[in-house]
Amino acid sequence: MFEEFLNNKNSWLNGLGPLSGIIFSSRIRLARNFNDYHFPGHVSGSRKEAILKNVEETYPAIKSLKGCAFVRMENLDDIDRRFLLERHLVSQEHIVSVKGKGLIVSGDERIAVMINEEDHLRMQVIASGFDVSVCWEMVNDIDDEFSRLFNIAFMPDFGYLTSCPTNTGTGLRASCMMHLPALVLTKRMNKILEFLSKISFTTRGLFGEGTQALGDFFQISNQVSLGLSEKEIVDNLTAVVNQVKDQELEARSVLMEKYQTSIEDNAWRALGILRNCRLISSKEALAHLSMLSLGMDLGIIKNINRGVLNSLFIVIQPAHMQKIEKLLLKEEERDRARAEILREKLKE
Amino acid sequence: MFEEFLNNKNSWLNGLGPLSGIIFSSRIRLARNFNDYHFPGHVSGSRKEAILKNVEETYPAIKSLKGCAFVRMENLDDIDRRFLLERHLVSQEHIVSVKGKGLIVSGDERIAVMINEEDHLRMQVIASGFDVSVCWEMVNDIDDEFSRLFNIAFMPDFGYLTSCPTNTGTGLRASCMMHLPALVLTKRMNKILEFLSKISFTTRGLFGEGTQALGDFFQISNQVSLGLSEKEIVDNLTAVVNQVKDQELEARSVLMEKYQTSIEDNAWRALGILRNCRLISSKEALAHLSMLSLGMDLGIIKNINRGVLNSLFIVIQPAHMQKIEKLLLKEEERDRARAEILREKLKE
Repeated sequence: MFEEFLNNKNSWLNGLGPLSGIIFSSRIRLARNFNDYHFPGHVSGSRKEAILKNVEETYPAIKSLKGCAFVRMENLDDIDRRFLLERHLVSQEHIVSVKGKGLIVSGDERIAVMINEEDHLRMQVIASGFDVSVCWEMVNDIDDEFSRLFNIAFMPDFGYLTSCPTNTGTGLRASCMMHLPALVLTKRMNKILEFLSKISFTTRGLFGEGTQALGDFFQISNQVSLGLSEKEIVDNLTAVVNQVKDQELEARSVLMEKYQTSIEDNAWRALGILRNCRLISSKEALAHLSMLSLGMDLGIIKNINRGVLNSLFIVIQPAHMQKIEKLLLKEEERDRARAEILREKLKE
Repeated sequence: MFEEFLNNKNSWLNGLGPLSGIIFSSRIRLARNFNDYHFPGHVSGSRKEAILKNVEETYPAIKSLKGCAFVRMENLDDIDRRFLLERHLVSQEHIVSVKGKGLIVSGDERIAVMINEEDHLRMQVIASGFDVSVCWEMVNDIDDEFSRLFNIAFMPDFGYLTSCPTNTGTGLRASCMMHLPALVLTKRMNKILEFLSKISFTTRGLFGEGTQALGDFFQISNQVSLGLSEKEIVDNLTAVVNQVKDQELEARSVLMEKYQTSIEDNAWRALGILRNCRLISSKEALAHLSMLSLGMDLGIIKNINRGVLNSLFIVIQPAHMQKIEKLLLKEEERDRARAEILREKLKE
């Protein structure tokens, strides 16, 4: 399944969004639960199955989800599940203990609704670049339609009820995946991280909770979803991301003023290695792609398509390698397949 | 001076000699002294000047040196002296305390005669690849002609007298500059070095006595020049170099059997870096050129000219950078100029 995702030109990976060199993607997700059932963590497998079936039968009435596919996680093999994880369509938690878990996903991958993850519904909308408000509009529509069809758990004092108390209130998490190589190179990132933590924003790596900041990617999101309106959360995130973006731009100016040749050297070497390697790990590839992306933003390297580059960050991941090769691969075989794809996609 | 050396297609750097991927060059040098003078280390500057003048006036009668240039070392600037050193035409010793020192050098750089180095005459012939006997024939002719014109110090019991006793006898040193990356990669080189030392052969780096084995180059030469005929010395060296060459070929087979993809990866990455870097030290460049050379010999990388590659090993050296740029350069400027030359010479 999902082969069509790899070549979809309308996906959020097309790199066409605003500022997509610094802001890889914007995302909003809403956590919602049904009044008629306990939270997924507190019900049996057969009960979860009943919830899933209910959603499966009802969602075709939702206009915003027209054309979306409905997938039972247990019907997928392990590679497909990890493929969805790498594409940011499901969470780490959603690919373990898969019984009764489901996913509604649009062909362009902008919309993904997880069923029976931590909450009954986790609705997500992703956009290319810096475009949080479009995500909010889309997810708000989906939420409205779900609310008309289901009895959603909500209490006037608390707002939406969620499995984890940190999500209670709006149930909303807004995030931007930022690419901040200059802040890393100039060793300013730690200060930024401290600042973000102080103002109650969370930072994560490219692949969500608990992952390292590989490839100089930092996902910045609100920590608090209670006591603020949805609009306030979205506006706050937008303001913070704008500030961090300005810091990154400032750091890039400093790099070009003080170390131009060295930055040019690093960017071109990164491209040279990506275009010539025969074996490469995903970690090393991410580091070079990051440097290449910086080189493109700084006008050092031209003639590389931003959409091709942005999708490579995802496509070089292990499950993608296996999906593309249609084989269960050993590590060295993946490293070889990854090198081949990089050479092919980045060739002159 | 010497700009014409950089583009001479007949130089020993043309890479056209036999086995020139493994055996970069062959060389023979003879040490000779005049009966009528003390060794150069034991005479005054004006006395050395008299010797130099004598050679300058007499050498045009030597047919083998027809067309050669005569150079007073003290008339050269520092960059030209180091340029000659990097091209293996003079020794480290010959570019310090330059008063009274001279050089006769042919336009193709195959012939170089140092005057008043450690001995009154140091005659050298270099050839591309594995071609010791042609060096011997040429240097023997030059020696015969010098012997007819000068009173050469020779004693029946000792042979030719030389400033350093290790050269007494034939005064002959035969050497091959071998490129042995597979023996280094398979960690077999130390055993070879021990073996060579046991059978009284000396190994040095790319730039002579005391230099490191940069770029996996090892100059192998006879240690003993007394008690053997010239032919025996040349034959012994030829046999030893053949053995080491076979070991290198064996190590290359092992690499290709066990680590083919990894070797391909290393060779292509080396080329990728050389073709894209904007700053590179001579040490790093040598390492990549070495890997590239191995990749060419193993058929991994095609369409690169062996002569271009072999001359790059020399051309990337610091004095060459300054000579080519016609400027005294700081280190970073040299690194930048070196990267430019590598990109230009190795471009697709």
